[in-house]
Amino acid sequence: MIRSPDNDKLKTIRKLAQKRWRGKLGLFAAEGEDLVAAAERAGWQARFVLRAGQDVEPELLDSVSTLGSGARVIGVYEQRWSEPGGDLSVWLHAVEDPGNVGAIIRSAHALADGPVILGPGCADPFSPKAVRASMGSLFARPPARAELDQLPGRPLALSAQARQTLHEAEIEPPLVLCVGSERGGLPAQLEQDAVRIELRADGPESLNAAMAATVALHEAAHRMARHA
Amino acid sequence: MIRSPDNDKLKTIRKLAQKRWRGKLGLFAAEGEDLVAAAERAGWQARFVLRAGQDVEPELLDSVSTLGSGARVIGVYEQRWSEPGGDLSVWLHAVEDPGNVGAIIRSAHALADGPVILGPGCADPFSPKAVRASMGSLFARPPARAELDQLPGRPLALSAQARQTLHEAEIEPPLVLCVGSERGGLPAQLEQDAVRIELRADGPESLNAAMAATVALHEAAHRMARHA
Repeated sequence: MIRSPDNDKLKTIRKLAQKRWRGKLGLFAAEGEDLVAAAERAGWQARFVLRAGQDVEPELLDSVSTLGSGARVIGVYEQRWSEPGGDLSVWLHAVEDPGNVGAIIRSAHALADGPVILGPGCADPFSPKAVRASMGSLFARPPARAELDQLPGRPLALSAQARQTLHEAEIEPPLVLCVGSERGGLPAQLEQDAVRIELRADGPESLNAAMAATVALHEAAHRMARHA
Repeated sequence: MIRSPDNDKLKTIRKLAQKRWRGKLGLFAAEGEDLVAAAERAGWQARFVLRAGQDVEPELLDSVSTLGSGARVIGVYEQRWSEPGGDLSVWLHAVEDPGNVGAIIRSAHALADGPVILGPGCADPFSPKAVRASMGSLFARPPARAELDQLPGRPLALSAQARQTLHEAEIEPPLVLCVGSERGGLPAQLEQDAVRIELRADGPESLNAAMAATVALHEAAHRMARHA
């Protein structure tokens, strides 16, 4: 039973709240029963797991948790990346919000056969917020990394300024939906062959990046299934 | 220029971080240029607006901000509620995450003519996180409140367990999409006439509540427009 805040495992968990340390150690932490169970289901071997009252004093585990409410269990895992691929996947460009990155990992796991591919400037998918938002899909479907010229299919960009709508777009596998940040958009070369999600004229200019990605994944997956 | 942390306006902003005080005062705060501009565009008169360096010392404004990065401007507004209505709207049941509530307010503003209708157990739409996630749509389209038997159209529930799919559902206005919490689901009477979003068999059981609402709004809006 760990009773000292100076314990090495607790120190490691504390470090993993920081991106710099996650990169250095190649590790990340998953907090809570649901995530640790998802890791097990997906066949991940933890570097170590600490359970409150069993391996460590509950207050000490709470003190290294990034959750306001504390955590009953924290697992530490080695970071893993997938290879880009699949009939349908998503490429993210400068999506900086970790909650959005995690949510898109979950949506892609639910709707597509390919991983989420992270381009330049994206939030760390192994950050506590991203891991949490992925709801365990990060373990079942680890993200990939690629530059725009390495995509495993035709890029179809989502852009609020596009003339063509998502419903008019040609949807043929392999397809890579490209989603940019809400402020910065996508590289110019993608904007030329982009589609927009039809929105009301009196509403906001765009959807949240995770919403846009999920709507497009749903539409593309449905049309691919219909044509299969 | 406000130079004291005991200033009444600063005290009010500090209180508005708490739900109890928001309810008591009937006010809420919007932090950042984008939100204050959205309020102005939507014709809302602020109770007061504080700008860093102009009305208040920047460090003092930062100290009452709920943003980690601080805020250059904070506006305080009276809470407003809409009446339920429209050809297409969303009813939320026990959606406890304020970020989800705010994101759905934004999505509904982009895709539907009716407001987001909050049922029992939902997060406060005027909490800092919800206001921020709404990206200003809260001002253009304030939320409504209603019980299940007060809905302004046919309820169509989203449920991961439903047999019928969203694509098979009858979409006729006025329609109210009903979305429950990811854990708790929806009242039993709704589950009987529910639809599911088609997900892969090897993926998660459900989408995030905001993603599910947005996918269904997009599909319903598209089909209503096609039949109009």
